[in-house]
Amino acid sequence: MSTTPFPTDSTPDELDTIAALAAAAAPIWAGTEPTVRAAALVAAADALLAARDELVAIAQAETGLTEARLTGEVGRTAVQLKLFAEVVVDGSYLDVRIDDADPGFVLGARPDLRRYRIPVGPVLNFAASNFPFAFSVAGGDTAAALAAGCPVIVKAHPGHPLLSVRTAEVVAGALVGAGAPAGILQLISGQDAGVQMLQDARIAAGSFTGSIRAGRILADIAAARPTPIPFFGELGSVNPVFVTQAALDENGETIAGGYLTSVTGSAGQLCTKPGFLFAPTGNTLAAQLVATGADPAEHRLLNPGITAGYQARRDAILATTGVRPILEGSVRIDEDGNGWATPTIVAVSTTDLLAGRDTLLDEAFGPLSVLVEYDDAAALAGQAAQLFEGNLTGTVHAGTGEDSPALRGIIDWIAQNAGRVLLGGWPTGVAVTPAQQHGGPYPATSNDSGTSVGSAAIGRFLRPVAYQSVPQELLPAALRDTNPWNVPQQRNTAGASQAWGSLQPGALG
Amino acid sequence: MSTTPFPTDSTPDELDTIAALAAAAAPIWAGTEPTVRAAALVAAADALLAARDELVAIAQAETGLTEARLTGEVGRTAVQLKLFAEVVVDGSYLDVRIDDADPGFVLGARPDLRRYRIPVGPVLNFAASNFPFAFSVAGGDTAAALAAGCPVIVKAHPGHPLLSVRTAEVVAGALVGAGAPAGILQLISGQDAGVQMLQDARIAAGSFTGSIRAGRILADIAAARPTPIPFFGELGSVNPVFVTQAALDENGETIAGGYLTSVTGSAGQLCTKPGFLFAPTGNTLAAQLVATGADPAEHRLLNPGITAGYQARRDAILATTGVRPILEGSVRIDEDGNGWATPTIVAVSTTDLLAGRDTLLDEAFGPLSVLVEYDDAAALAGQAAQLFEGNLTGTVHAGTGEDSPALRGIIDWIAQNAGRVLLGGWPTGVAVTPAQQHGGPYPATSNDSGTSVGSAAIGRFLRPVAYQSVPQELLPAALRDTNPWNVPQQRNTAGASQAWGSLQPGALG
Repeated sequence: MSTTPFPTDSTPDELDTIAALAAAAAPIWAGTEPTVRAAALVAAADALLAARDELVAIAQAETGLTEARLTGEVGRTAVQLKLFAEVVVDGSYLDVRIDDADPGFVLGARPDLRRYRIPVGPVLNFAASNFPFAFSVAGGDTAAALAAGCPVIVKAHPGHPLLSVRTAEVVAGALVGAGAPAGILQLISGQDAGVQMLQDARIAAGSFTGSIRAGRILADIAAARPTPIPFFGELGSVNPVFVTQAALDENGETIAGGYLTSVTGSAGQLCTKPGFLFAPTGNTLAAQLVATGADPAEHRLLNPGITAGYQARRDAILATTGVRPILEGSVRIDEDGNGWATPTIVAVSTTDLLAGRDTLLDEAFGPLSVLVEYDDAAALAGQAAQLFEGNLTGTVHAGTGEDSPALRGIIDWIAQNAGRVLLGGWPTGVAVTPAQQHGGPYPATSNDSGTSVGSAAIGRFLRPVAYQSVPQELLPAALRDTNPWNVPQQRNTAGASQAWGSLQPGALG
Repeated sequence: MSTTPFPTDSTPDELDTIAALAAAAAPIWAGTEPTVRAAALVAAADALLAARDELVAIAQAETGLTEARLTGEVGRTAVQLKLFAEVVVDGSYLDVRIDDADPGFVLGARPDLRRYRIPVGPVLNFAASNFPFAFSVAGGDTAAALAAGCPVIVKAHPGHPLLSVRTAEVVAGALVGAGAPAGILQLISGQDAGVQMLQDARIAAGSFTGSIRAGRILADIAAARPTPIPFFGELGSVNPVFVTQAALDENGETIAGGYLTSVTGSAGQLCTKPGFLFAPTGNTLAAQLVATGADPAEHRLLNPGITAGYQARRDAILATTGVRPILEGSVRIDEDGNGWATPTIVAVSTTDLLAGRDTLLDEAFGPLSVLVEYDDAAALAGQAAQLFEGNLTGTVHAGTGEDSPALRGIIDWIAQNAGRVLLGGWPTGVAVTPAQQHGGPYPATSNDSGTSVGSAAIGRFLRPVAYQSVPQELLPAALRDTNPWNVPQQRNTAGASQAWGSLQPGALG
């Protein structure tokens, strides 16, 4: 075990030193060759894996999450770093565009113009409670920012303070050992410290995973700075699931089991937990859920704040008119102040859900979900539009080959109001891949132009810059004709604008 | 001439109707096939060109800009629409990524995931005073949003109200005639109306070209909404130019002439006007500027507000300690209330510029620029960092083949603090091309992740969405294996994660 001291809140002097170190590291890391940057990310991944047993033990004690879950999460965190190492070397993310000079351009001579994306500068990352590795010190936001070429300051989550300190030591040590500058990854502690750092002029962007309330406060602070900065907050989501009669006829039992597993995994403390499942009135899911024999084992909740919030939400939901418990479940606090819960599934009609919306629609962070009984599949998309704001995901379970205007309507509603549309399967378990989208319309995220999972996440920490008529020897490597980094260069040759004619009507026909 | 009525401020009822029409148009336009959307943009371009003489006449009367300038601007505006028509058909902007299902993915089976970018919804575009065509009703922001698949509401600039109404008639008519839905392009008038519309829940994004003061107010409103939305404001920029001794030795006279042309074009009322030119102390530019014989013709300023602002800025600058007029120039108001100006160029030392920074550094919107005399080229980048905030552009004039740490230092400072770096040439005259970047760190823009000129501008009005395990027949066209729209699809095949080993240290070596 580590002898890591318990971190105290960062002082203003400490914050100033940390910001200065990050600012000094920024140009060095931005100018580090892709192969070196990638190797440092791989070294960080390997250091995490090498320290896995020690880190998992600390995390278990601090979070109550299971060893299996935490061990898997270290693997996921390492994979994220390795995926981004590949992204860095590939170079597509730079979006290199080269316009050859074009003396015959239709609006007059066009100069040689070359554009790519550069790192924004130091990034402040507010770590999450529920993923002590994958959305914390060395998590997805950190990996994406480091890959983009930005130093990172992590505001540790108070739910796993010792783990945060030790992870930062392991990962920063590996990065610096592989050639990254001092200041590449630093830790701060304390709520006020986080706010103060977010307001520091040296911070160029923020990222966050947590509640709507906290995330909105921070997003507003970022927007109100003398120089506003982008703030990528992943906030709240209830992830509705819509099940058709055909799906139930084919797979009722499998759906019931998958639903319960998705709701209860990690004690329901996942941003993609399905909070609502819509199924036809008279469905057999309730009976099937009971028949599965809900997991009798209690699971620990992450911290007293989450426990208190979950208790209050659960009580309010159970007390709402029309709400019927299917699995009543439980939540209690032990002598050490830790919360423990078994899953709660309740049923309600769409009518009662609409009537009780003020109570029922907020996210319940924990192992609780609402089974909504609907009468008219064709009305579902319209009802969903009345009920829900933006979400990370929306899921449809349909029969094999099923197709109808109602089905297409609900899929389209999801696409318009969420970041990810699933046909079958469950929204928990977010794959770390190039095509992943973890982010959706507010309040799912504070800025839905990016993703916080998958390789596209790097784009949040870049901004474009163009070079006009700059001689080859003074150009950045990625923009040179010799292309020493071997990155994709989209080249726009001279003469294309001739197709537009002489700006007379009818051109480009 | 048109019989267009002078627009009155939009009423709350009118705004509600307009927002509803835009919201109704959104899904229709988003679902319009690329070839149809592109053809509608070309039809709009052709309609503008066909109405050019009529529109230019209205614009001349309302803005005082020259016929040649306005005629060219209509061409530029048409080219923007045609460029975006090509972008729409090409489809790269969709950023389609397809992950094949991968049962052997290192973190466990990966589903089939397909991600692309969809239009955000209705866009509110605040038109500019200084480009009555290219940054107004049918300007770059409108073209980019329409191309992205978003209906557009334009808040007309009060400096050219009749032109705004007539342009909207011409362009909306052409779009609808080519198959676009009613509500595709609508106009509103009045400052309060603009604010009210920006706060309407049906508006998904804002764009703006104008002053820092107004832009920041609107950006803050957009960020403070119950549901915050992205706001792309192009605000203020002073576009510093740095001239080396070698450049002066080679090209002094050409540089003097080019500088004066760039400062005085469109009466200096351009966001890329070079507001500061740094040249070595003892340079001959002052004499050469006088020798060029500054244009004796007065140019009309756009409107009384700009005239008043310019007069105040010019008076303050001329009264600052150490400021010496080279071309004193003039500004006056005629009997109709129109402002008229001839160019003002003043000289100041870097020491006096630093001392007078509170007065001298703000943008002077009009035909005025400051020639700064420096003693130490090696100190320039550091001085620039002390003086300037974010800019749209920064320019260096160097000798042929010149290279030095000082030169590289200033180029790098520009890249870190502006959106476009020029070696030689002048920042005015922004090419409309794929590699253009018109946007830079605050306060040049309120959001420097995008550009407001060039084809990359479309990215501001899109957000990503992913489809997981969705059958081919229920997928959007761009994501299908058959690829009916023939768009670029980045495909990530199964098996790649094997290179990362079994998550043991050393993988991806």
